[in-house]
Amino acid sequence: MSPQSTAFKSLEDLRAACLDLPAGSDAAAGAVAKRQDTLTKPPGSLGRLETIAAWLGRWQGRDMPKLDAVKVFVFAGNHGVTAQGVSAYPSEVTVQMVANFAGGGAAINQLARIAGAKLDVIPLDLDHPTGDFTQVPAMDEKAFLAAVTAGYDAVTNDLDLVCFGEMGIGNTTPAAAISTALFGGGAEKWTGRGTGVDDAGLQRKVVAIEAGLKRHADSLSDPLKIAAALGGRELAAIFGATLAARKNNVPVLLDGFVCTAAVAPLARLHPTGLAHTIAAHVSAEAGHRRLLEALGLPPLLDLGMRLGEGSGACLAVNIVRSALECHAKMASFAEAGVSEK
Amino acid sequence: MSPQSTAFKSLEDLRAACLDLPAGSDAAAGAVAKRQDTLTKPPGSLGRLETIAAWLGRWQGRDMPKLDAVKVFVFAGNHGVTAQGVSAYPSEVTVQMVANFAGGGAAINQLARIAGAKLDVIPLDLDHPTGDFTQVPAMDEKAFLAAVTAGYDAVTNDLDLVCFGEMGIGNTTPAAAISTALFGGGAEKWTGRGTGVDDAGLQRKVVAIEAGLKRHADSLSDPLKIAAALGGRELAAIFGATLAARKNNVPVLLDGFVCTAAVAPLARLHPTGLAHTIAAHVSAEAGHRRLLEALGLPPLLDLGMRLGEGSGACLAVNIVRSALECHAKMASFAEAGVSEK
Repeated sequence: MSPQSTAFKSLEDLRAACLDLPAGSDAAAGAVAKRQDTLTKPPGSLGRLETIAAWLGRWQGRDMPKLDAVKVFVFAGNHGVTAQGVSAYPSEVTVQMVANFAGGGAAINQLARIAGAKLDVIPLDLDHPTGDFTQVPAMDEKAFLAAVTAGYDAVTNDLDLVCFGEMGIGNTTPAAAISTALFGGGAEKWTGRGTGVDDAGLQRKVVAIEAGLKRHADSLSDPLKIAAALGGRELAAIFGATLAARKNNVPVLLDGFVCTAAVAPLARLHPTGLAHTIAAHVSAEAGHRRLLEALGLPPLLDLGMRLGEGSGACLAVNIVRSALECHAKMASFAEAGVSEK
Repeated sequence: MSPQSTAFKSLEDLRAACLDLPAGSDAAAGAVAKRQDTLTKPPGSLGRLETIAAWLGRWQGRDMPKLDAVKVFVFAGNHGVTAQGVSAYPSEVTVQMVANFAGGGAAINQLARIAGAKLDVIPLDLDHPTGDFTQVPAMDEKAFLAAVTAGYDAVTNDLDLVCFGEMGIGNTTPAAAISTALFGGGAEKWTGRGTGVDDAGLQRKVVAIEAGLKRHADSLSDPLKIAAALGGRELAAIFGATLAARKNNVPVLLDGFVCTAAVAPLARLHPTGLAHTIAAHVSAEAGHRRLLEALGLPPLLDLGMRLGEGSGACLAVNIVRSALECHAKMASFAEAGVSEK
């Protein structure tokens, strides 16, 4: 299923994998664009639907892309930094929500069904939260690589499109910490209210992130060490899954702030590291719009959502399906006997 | 099917119908909002999906809205003002595209299928273009009321959601003319390239609109007379269909610039005339963003589309479906045993 599937044995092993990325198929993207210009519409009038079709072609490596196998992965993790009072909800909610996913009662269950996508929920060692990064690294190298590998191995080469989401009480704090570490500007700039903390909670988040950056100052020049010291298991898994998707010709829809922060290190390691991804939406979480701008990823949707779970990514699947359906099944001017300009 | 269905006998008859609009159900919208706050997500975290659910409830008048019967109407008309060289395509393309809709080869055919919506294409007297509004009124009162009635009678009360679109070579010129007449600021402000005219074509559009406004100066204080003198049959039909939707408890997704200009007179006649509509998208056509701002309609999607046909409206249907599916089928905190704040 996944020929590159492997346990990463060291940070350097993972780094080498991140530096060696396939470039995508110019030929397939060109074939898609050429067909687009024959279809019964003014050239360019389907806007981003046209560029999405070419993006699918490029990263699937298919002149005629397909969307038969679409999957949403939700990675779940728990966070030691919740000891700093950074979330409005108790950590037990992470495992409770995993049960809710299994029972079909969460938002992502409904959204995946409408999207025609299978849902795969992958809890990552929920009984063992990451370290509190104000005191210790969130993960040591071994724990980080295990989480990256869990994500990497989940994405097989029989998939046509994947959405990545997450569940983890407290995880907008590591997301803001990673963003601050990678892009600078101070923690306030990247820190928001997550599930809905009050002003005091927001201030506790900023203080925790500043403490984390100070404690792990030696790691801040390396995107992978940042992800290990300040991140979380579900973020590391999304990083690994996004890397595997690139290697396996599977285009990716990214979700909100946490998901985007999780993959940002890949953009720092490789100049086109996120070219096979589309930011499905911009969330209402404070740092997300800024992070997408820093990464050069224009979002498809802007609906004021801030739930996570892959909800925004999943909502974009039918837009991608619409793009492909128009591309694949519209008549050409010649076929339909419609006059051109 | 449609108890209010009727031929409008005079402008005053139509005006009376526009002034007597149902207010929507506060009770149903309140019931939806109340249920939303019990579902397993932080309050408000589904953003516009939550307000869409309440909007469906309000305008369907149902505590639990439904989306079993969703329909896309595409109204088609031809325009005398094309004699002024305002389009990149010949007028014969209107009837050719109607044939393409019937054959299943247009973008809207594919988009309607993905949206789970039935498609109904209604050509309006294509052999008889409207008058060239630089010389004569586009429609006299009788022709205008006939087109409004055709749209009105199309929307029956067994529908749960409707999308309105249009096809009519040359019709961004009447759309810009109506916008200029209703909101002022000069024709340049509202005039764009439509299907893709060059600079000279753009200038011809502006000149034609200025000539039309001058010729019909006596009509510009009345939104209905503006729609008759400067509009088109497909625009008048969309106006009538939007009015019928309000009377029949059917929420509406509006499409692009032409569709929005078509319904703008209703907002001018009644302060909440468009409250039962959502602007599904903002198109790349120059005047659309400004028109939506003038009407206070924030668009759901912003994807650089400018095709018409109802394409943007149809693309939003699955977002509305997603909103309802989350609302109807998510578990509550109590049901799922998830801890609250």
